Amino acid sequence: MHIKLKDLQETHQRIKPFIHNTPILSSSLINDIVGADIYFKCENFQKMGAFKMRGALNAVLQLSDEQKKNGVATHSSGNFAQALALAAKLQNIKAYIVMPENAPEVKKKAVKGYGGKIIECEANLEARETTLNKVVAETGAKFLHPYNDYQVIEGQGTAAMELIGEHADLDYIIAPVGGGGLLSGTALATYYLSPKTKVIAGEPLGADDAWQSLEKGELIPQTKPKTIADGLLTSLGDKTYPIIRDFVEKIVRVEEDEIIAAMRLIWERMKIIVEPSSAVALAALIKEKKKYQGKKVAIILSGGNVDLGNLPF
Amino acid sequence: MHIKLKDLQETHQRIKPFIHNTPILSSSLINDIVGADIYFKCENFQKMGAFKMRGALNAVLQLSDEQKKNGVATHSSGNFAQALALAAKLQNIKAYIVMPENAPEVKKKAVKGYGGKIIECEANLEARETTLNKVVAETGAKFLHPYNDYQVIEGQGTAAMELIGEHADLDYIIAPVGGGGLLSGTALATYYLSPKTKVIAGEPLGADDAWQSLEKGELIPQTKPKTIADGLLTSLGDKTYPIIRDFVEKIVRVEEDEIIAAMRLIWERMKIIVEPSSAVALAALIKEKKKYQGKKVAIILSGGNVDLGNLPF
Repeated sequence: MHIKLKDLQETHQRIKPFIHNTPILSSSLINDIVGADIYFKCENFQKMGAFKMRGALNAVLQLSDEQKKNGVATHSSGNFAQALALAAKLQNIKAYIVMPENAPEVKKKAVKGYGGKIIECEANLEARETTLNKVVAETGAKFLHPYNDYQVIEGQGTAAMELIGEHADLDYIIAPVGGGGLLSGTALATYYLSPKTKVIAGEPLGADDAWQSLEKGELIPQTKPKTIADGLLTSLGDKTYPIIRDFVEKIVRVEEDEIIAAMRLIWERMKIIVEPSSAVALAALIKEKKKYQGKKVAIILSGGNVDLGNLPF
Repeated sequence: MHIKLKDLQETHQRIKPFIHNTPILSSSLINDIVGADIYFKCENFQKMGAFKMRGALNAVLQLSDEQKKNGVATHSSGNFAQALALAAKLQNIKAYIVMPENAPEVKKKAVKGYGGKIIECEANLEARETTLNKVVAETGAKFLHPYNDYQVIEGQGTAAMELIGEHADLDYIIAPVGGGGLLSGTALATYYLSPKTKVIAGEPLGADDAWQSLEKGELIPQTKPKTIADGLLTSLGDKTYPIIRDFVEKIVRVEEDEIIAAMRLIWERMKIIVEPSSAVALAALIKEKKKYQGKKVAIILSGGNVDLGNLPF
């Protein structure tokens, strides 16, 4: 195994001073609806509003002095763009973020707010990669992948470490899966620290490459994702896929209306703001709720960055 | 003074087992924007989603056995209706809630969800009072006023008691004012327990009867309130007015767009759901932010019950 328990423990020590140990909340009303004892790990309260801060920081904190001079670069239109910009800002280094020109203004504004330098490109993967390569060639910045990177995976695993630290006897941990950074980190942390706990993933039916990959036993890329869960559009990578294959019990696919209903339940009953991707994990639990009757289940609420002007309610 | 420190302390002991000691949150981003050190007392996380639970419980818990047999009654289209229904349910007694027939379905549903019996009436104060009197005559239920009641005021004061218990050195506490239950309870708790702390109120310009009452030195009723802050439409009462007159430093009036902007700031930056009435307190702070530079300020976020299908963003 590339990532060892010691790596996870060192990661947590490394990033701890810079992140929030986010609260773990419960709702007796949601417990009653589902019939389980549910603990929500609130990464929507994490710095910049999502768990991605953990992985970005872990990578940035391990740059050499030479690398720090030239800064970091990534292509992302989502939370990793903001996370890398903020992690870089905290270390006083430059962050170059390649974003598709049609990315929502609210996201561009957030990246700029954290001091990131945005380089726009056409809205397709080829243009993103070409532009990124150009930026890296011109600036010498270090490319950091949003999820297919062991340091990033280790960082994302620390949310589950905190969960398990507070609740040693969980039957299940459920996380959403997009590129698989959070899920693979969660699965490894759980394997090492709470081996009796099973890790389940929720995935939108409209972007079910992870489910398909596990079904076929090989990495199937996401081609035309279509889901409101805009943090889960990406394909698994060659580093996240094998970890998920080996350490995740099951991927549960959920429909769009199930995602929106779960999101609304969290907003209305818990009075907290989560993005649709976060609600995918609760939707997966509700979809198979019989399985969880009387069990102790944790859900990782991955983030809370939504465009309030464009809600599905 | 009708309400003594001992009354407040006994109230807190009485209701403590049944309410949440709600969390106190901070946002470094909002602190930076305002230039103050702000502590948000999150009554949006209180049972049934608002501070009203405290006062309703305090009254219900002091009913005689005879009174318990006949139940309680009130007229309210807002959070007190839900609070009384839930408080009664917890004590296994009946709650009769007179609501205007045009009250939002979502509010009627919530009251029914807590087991309250709804009696509909025409949407004017006279019809409300007539209907209530009829209900009381027929059932023998005890009428509880949503705010102009010493037991209710004492209950609402316990939020500030918890605040002061955790932060002894506050320069200011800011609360919204509608009927004045929360504000008068907050002012008395602060007077007894943290006399150096000043209490300020935020009030919508479109429902500024409390401001007008303090200006004119007499109770001026609210006639045609017009504001998005639907928890603040009511007039002060003859019990809340003198406490506010004597123990509140100042009422700051805020415009509708300032309320919405403050609400959005809380939603976007803190990732928590608050109702417009809650945002009135932050809007009041922002309106006079120079005054608060470098100060330690607490804001009572009064509740989080919003209709997600009808947001101002």
